[in-house]
Amino acid sequence: MTAWEEWLAAEAASREAAGLTRRLRPRAADDVTIDLAGNDYLGLARDPEVRQTAADAALRWGSSASASRLVTGTLALHEELETALAAYLAQPAALVFSTGYHANLAVVSALADRGTRVLSDAHVHASLVDAVRLSRARLSVVPHSDVDAVRAGLAAAAEAGERALVLVESVYSVLGDAAPLVELATLCEEYDALLVVDEAHAVGVHGPGLVATLGLAGLPHVVVTATLSKALGAQGGAVLGPVALREHLVNRARPFIFDTGLAPAPTAGALAALRAVRSRPGLGALVRERVAALADVLGVVAPAGAVLSVPMSSPQAAVAAQAAALEAGLRVGCFRPPSVPDGISRLRITVTAGVADDDWARAVDVLVALVKEHQ
Amino acid sequence: MTAWEEWLAAEAASREAAGLTRRLRPRAADDVTIDLAGNDYLGLARDPEVRQTAADAALRWGSSASASRLVTGTLALHEELETALAAYLAQPAALVFSTGYHANLAVVSALADRGTRVLSDAHVHASLVDAVRLSRARLSVVPHSDVDAVRAGLAAAAEAGERALVLVESVYSVLGDAAPLVELATLCEEYDALLVVDEAHAVGVHGPGLVATLGLAGLPHVVVTATLSKALGAQGGAVLGPVALREHLVNRARPFIFDTGLAPAPTAGALAALRAVRSRPGLGALVRERVAALADVLGVVAPAGAVLSVPMSSPQAAVAAQAAALEAGLRVGCFRPPSVPDGISRLRITVTAGVADDDWARAVDVLVALVKEHQ
Ligand SMILES: Cc1ncc(COP(=O)(O)O)c(C=O)c1O
Ligand SMILES: Cc1ncc(COP(=O)(O)O)c(C=O)c1O
Repeated sequence: MTAWEEWLAAEAASREAAGLTRRLRPRAADDVTIDLAGNDYLGLARDPEVRQTAADAALRWGSSASASRLVTGTLALHEELETALAAYLAQPAALVFSTGYHANLAVVSALADRGTRVLSDAHVHASLVDAVRLSRARLSVVPHSDVDAVRAGLAAAAEAGERALVLVESVYSVLGDAAPLVELATLCEEYDALLVVDEAHAVGVHGPGLVATLGLAGLPHVVVTATLSKALGAQGGAVLGPVALREHLVNRARPFIFDTGLAPAPTAGALAALRAVRSRPGLGALVRERVAALADVLGVVAPAGAVLSVPMSSPQAAVAAQAAALEAGLRVGCFRPPSVPDGISRLRITVTAGVADDDWARAVDVLVALVKEHQ
Repeated sequence: MTAWEEWLAAEAASREAAGLTRRLRPRAADDVTIDLAGNDYLGLARDPEVRQTAADAALRWGSSASASRLVTGTLALHEELETALAAYLAQPAALVFSTGYHANLAVVSALADRGTRVLSDAHVHASLVDAVRLSRARLSVVPHSDVDAVRAGLAAAAEAGERALVLVESVYSVLGDAAPLVELATLCEEYDALLVVDEAHAVGVHGPGLVATLGLAGLPHVVVTATLSKALGAQGGAVLGPVALREHLVNRARPFIFDTGLAPAPTAGALAALRAVRSRPGLGALVRERVAALADVLGVVAPAGAVLSVPMSSPQAAVAAQAAALEAGLRVGCFRPPSVPDGISRLRITVTAGVADDDWARAVDVLVALVKEHQ
């Protein structure tokens, strides 16, 4: 065995011993299991019009953008999507990336450098954590949603004459709680810092996202990132904010400059989904109602987003409950270390407007019984 | 103005002063300009069967994978593509990512850590440079294609008891030259190191890529990364190598674990393109013939890949030649700092099998005249 083979084997053995080995379970196109694990919060990834629009774009534009956005990979379709996103999220400008991960890597690494202070909430997504590492900025991880800690960090940065960035999610991925955005935006204005808000789990579920809903869109000190792969039922990501920021990213963001543009089908799919979100506001409202009702019967705190998180006693209990759900025709998520910030395994149940009323009622009954048995 | 607005304005002003401001130029679906700037080397992104297959996948599977691959975002289609890629590239296993950038970030950051020595060729792609930074490995940038320097670096790593990774491209992106893969693979075997070869610009143009063509596929000390967004006419990337490596990436690679799976349309598009590459080997051969002939008439060294690089005297001369080409109905690329490793501006001409013979002949005439005038 080579040294690398030995190392891979040792890594695999220690995962196996800890019960943490993860395997991919492919699903079939005709799978009838009710999906309460993904992020298709509004059911738009499977909406007939969204699918058709995505398919038409592949026929019309081809299956690739075929180049970096700065070379010949910018399609009129990309700009159409950027205009529509900026309009809906009430921002001056938007720039689309080929994943939400790229959007987060791009915005932080193009704004921050060794001379920047980044205050990053302890629960932000892996893509923002990686983004800070890429940027080489001076990082302070702030206790989750601790406004006083952010204030102290901003004061210290101001004292040191450092430009400062604050990184948060509007609705957090793992626990589903909302960030104290109004307080944070006020602090950032006061200390001349920039607030970067990842709206991955809020756009669609809360209409144009929490930044817009709270009246913070368009402020020069608030920047939004979003993904097209969740409520917008496609793939890709976006950064939204001032026109000067968009221009800066076009010129400086390596994950934009050195990456092929988003493929036509997901670009058009996101555009169609955005139209659906605007014309059918009942979709987001339905998700929020279902979330409140399900949290109530499961006895957990209702999250701000669409994903209910049910703490389980062990990784094994979480896996057992997940298997039982599958037996009953429901696919639910199960998050175990290292995907959770606090080491607690959880059943994750995605509430979605994409499931018909009767199926939803049955799913709720199954979930209640199953959580009681395995928790 | 806020401190951030001032900083963005100052950055924009210094770009402008240096003549380096870049702007996006969107193209329309019915654009008739001949595209000699993108990376659709075999013309497969616009191939009728590839488009149709991509469109059908959007209709059948929806417009999104809707979840991380480890949650419910692995489609049977992803595994089909992985099996087909592994078979064609003669590797034991493949793992698909949503961009080629993600594939590179993933393989390096999941294999290397502070205790690893990375020897990275001076010309590797931005995604590999970022990958090393993410990994926090000890980095040595090796002079371009300098085998002796790699040997010295490997000897030093062995001396220090560090696991070592060597990062190269098989056909380099900017200059189009080929890496000394056989020598590098021999060295890596000798020093028990791992060779990571980015085949982004070789797959399709050289059939299954140079690693397979040179008989290096399947060796335990050679790993391949590829993109689906160039000759395979879609979007996404892949890592190919030992089964144990694939399992490791599934469990440890953050840009895989924390990212939505590749959308159905580009997944199916890449699969259809792969079928076309296998059934029509004449496509790659045609590109290689056209490259040789064009290099000859332009008086430049023929590249190993499909992209001809013509050095220009200044960024301004490169831009002027590019504009003249566009007037004549040809879109060619123009690379200026900071996208070039050596600071020399270049006209980049992509040779592609996707242009009909008569259009190609006309394009060659135009290019010859234009390079003479502006070089
Ligand atoms: C909060 C958050 N940000 C960013 C991302 C990355 O988005 P994408 O999957 O589109 O790359 C995700 C999830 O995937 C996320 O949950
Ligand atoms: C050598 C090389 N590797 C990786 C990439 C990234 O691939 P993708 O555009 O699919 O993200 C590119 C270009 O985009 C490239 O030229």
